[in-house]
Amino acid sequence: MRAVDIIIKKKNGASLTKEEIHYIINGYVNGNIPDYQISALLMAICFNRLDSEERYYLTKEMLESGEQIDLSKVNGLCVDKHSTGGVGDKTTLVIAPILAACGLKLAKMSGRGLGHTGGTLDKLESIPGLTVDISSDDFFKQVNEIGLAVIGQTANITPADKKLYSLRDVTGTVDSVGLISGSIMSKKLASGASTILLDVKVGDGAFMKNIAEAKELANAMVDIGKKFNRSCIAMLTDMDQPLGEAVGNSLEVIEAIETLKGNGPTDFKKLCYEISSELLVSSQMFKCKDEAKKAIDDVISSGKALNKLKEMIIYQGGNPDVINDYSLFKTANNIVEVKSIKTGYIEKIKTENCGIAAMLLGAGRQTKEDIIDSSVGIKFIKKIGDFVNKDDIIAYVHTNGKNTESSIELIQNSYIITDKKVERKNIVLDIIRG
Amino acid sequence: MRAVDIIIKKKNGASLTKEEIHYIINGYVNGNIPDYQISALLMAICFNRLDSEERYYLTKEMLESGEQIDLSKVNGLCVDKHSTGGVGDKTTLVIAPILAACGLKLAKMSGRGLGHTGGTLDKLESIPGLTVDISSDDFFKQVNEIGLAVIGQTANITPADKKLYSLRDVTGTVDSVGLISGSIMSKKLASGASTILLDVKVGDGAFMKNIAEAKELANAMVDIGKKFNRSCIAMLTDMDQPLGEAVGNSLEVIEAIETLKGNGPTDFKKLCYEISSELLVSSQMFKCKDEAKKAIDDVISSGKALNKLKEMIIYQGGNPDVINDYSLFKTANNIVEVKSIKTGYIEKIKTENCGIAAMLLGAGRQTKEDIIDSSVGIKFIKKIGDFVNKDDIIAYVHTNGKNTESSIELIQNSYIITDKKVERKNIVLDIIRG
Repeated sequence: MRAVDIIIKKKNGASLTKEEIHYIINGYVNGNIPDYQISALLMAICFNRLDSEERYYLTKEMLESGEQIDLSKVNGLCVDKHSTGGVGDKTTLVIAPILAACGLKLAKMSGRGLGHTGGTLDKLESIPGLTVDISSDDFFKQVNEIGLAVIGQTANITPADKKLYSLRDVTGTVDSVGLISGSIMSKKLASGASTILLDVKVGDGAFMKNIAEAKELANAMVDIGKKFNRSCIAMLTDMDQPLGEAVGNSLEVIEAIETLKGNGPTDFKKLCYEISSELLVSSQMFKCKDEAKKAIDDVISSGKALNKLKEMIIYQGGNPDVINDYSLFKTANNIVEVKSIKTGYIEKIKTENCGIAAMLLGAGRQTKEDIIDSSVGIKFIKKIGDFVNKDDIIAYVHTNGKNTESSIELIQNSYIITDKKVERKNIVLDIIRG
Repeated sequence: MRAVDIIIKKKNGASLTKEEIHYIINGYVNGNIPDYQISALLMAICFNRLDSEERYYLTKEMLESGEQIDLSKVNGLCVDKHSTGGVGDKTTLVIAPILAACGLKLAKMSGRGLGHTGGTLDKLESIPGLTVDISSDDFFKQVNEIGLAVIGQTANITPADKKLYSLRDVTGTVDSVGLISGSIMSKKLASGASTILLDVKVGDGAFMKNIAEAKELANAMVDIGKKFNRSCIAMLTDMDQPLGEAVGNSLEVIEAIETLKGNGPTDFKKLCYEISSELLVSSQMFKCKDEAKKAIDDVISSGKALNKLKEMIIYQGGNPDVINDYSLFKTANNIVEVKSIKTGYIEKIKTENCGIAAMLLGAGRQTKEDIIDSSVGIKFIKKIGDFVNKDDIIAYVHTNGKNTESSIELIQNSYIITDKKVERKNIVLDIIRG
């Protein structure tokens, strides 16, 4: 077998065999096939796509290139949730405590992504004292005792995907459904959960800009899940405006705590209920989502869900008092009003730009080396469908002085305002069940 | 500017600017842009093509990446001919003496290609004593004094193309009209001739398998020539059977000599007349091709053309007696008959396989390190349109014992024989004048 023949085969539109995919991935990981042949193949895949079988074999090869977490050490049903990434997405911080309070286990190992705003690990680390560097033994002990843990990746999971992803990033070959689905699913399958919910974000602030693309990706991932006999659900959710109000690490944790207290913003609360109830039903804890949602109401009103978050904070070395005293978080020096530059109904919020605005303040990383300022961020108090007068406050910028003016300007220009009344958007756009 | 943005731009189907192409080629030659980004871009170009402007700028950048031969030191009009490569193509050895005898100059620096059969330099080197390693000064002196020289490349011509070609070869990105035309034209332009004739081979034994592809390439090359204000003609010629009868180095030189004596095989002789007369007319030596062809008849019947070859052999250190005594060439130990396995009309000759058969005997290189045996080869005495009985001799294999049987079998199976009468093919399929 020669790599160049495999490249030409894919370039000519044919499907690669299991053996060819093995040869490529194995050869790449072992250093026998050079970057320049792999990048040519990746580009050919961007044009000629991977079919269902190819996606399966690619996922399998990447999965088997590294360690796989054995969750049989956990008593009870383990579920997992993955988001393709959006602005203001603090969902894990709410659904993990809800699910644990309802009797499921969420044993989550997260990687640290490079996004406009921090990832789940960065958000958690804004809680004073809390660590995500937990040993494998302590991780399983924590999950068994309290039902939830969110920690950094310790195991050498899917090294083939890591190597491929770095190459895709610099060769313009990121946006292929086959490559994305294989990358996400190999990591999720390696994490060992029996049920996986994939939150596929759609819209301006997401990687998938329209529903057709998002659906294709969702179907591909659910299809891979099926082939591995894992229960897999994809939920297409709106990312045409920031999720909830808060964007920025401490601000998002506070919003998550508020949501667990029953006070979350409508759209964000709705999403947490949808994801949690979907997982509770597919894990056969409840017969239907309405029953599951009642149970969620109960664990929130009783404080049980909030208590799960508290337990997790304690287990992971954090100060649990933050739950009732937000002043224990690092806070920004200044809170600056952002005013509307027009009168009318909010039709659109350029969400990617909102993410960039938060990053400019210091809430996210532009390069891997950047250090996140957990105190800064934005609160978006006006959302799509709201009516605003010129000079009404639409958002607050929490800043320590870095790029404040450009961030404010970017936010103002992200609000597209129209004369006609605008409908509020549904947060859940579609659900695909495997 | 970032390479990844340029890759994505081409991937999305946009045209690259002059500046972007400069950035890429310059960065690649300087080592600032790695192979893996270039190979991804090359693959994107295979799918999304280069337009006329992009081809021009690519050619320009490659041309300017190295030395350019200044033919102003030559008195008189310099012409050049380039073949995209076929089986049995010894045309240069005939047209160079004809043109020189008619008063044009042919100052040719050839690269050593990797083909099934040797290149022009290998063919020349089968003449005892002849060298193609001539200094630049001696090269110009020879051209000025006798009108022709065919030598190896001494100058550092189009290093960017060399680097790109090596990468294309191993990444399945060879077959792009934009990349091929840029590669050929940058080399031809660097060689300095005022008029360039491109012999674009079409058919089973050529890189371009069908006339549509060949025409696209021909048009692209003529278009580039125009943009550089060079007179450029593309001739599409048949490569659905070996050219002439001889394939193999000494055998081809002998066939060239015979053609200069007026005894060449019909198809090969026709091609030499067409190419020579085309160049004579476009250089304004004659008003029309018929006049030019009469002049060619004259220089052949008078022996002037043959004498030019003799002069070239003498100037380049070879033994000119080979012209009248073919036993001075290295000859093969055995000449073996190849018999037809069927009765009927020859419909097709799988020409690529014929080239491979010659290579198996030792006439060409499989890897750069292989040493060519100049004495071996094949004489194809039956061609398309001929009628043969089973066991009639269709070819002779000149062999020193290497792979004789497999070569014979390959030749036999390359002849496709049918019951119906078959028309002989035209050697010249189309001419595109810039």
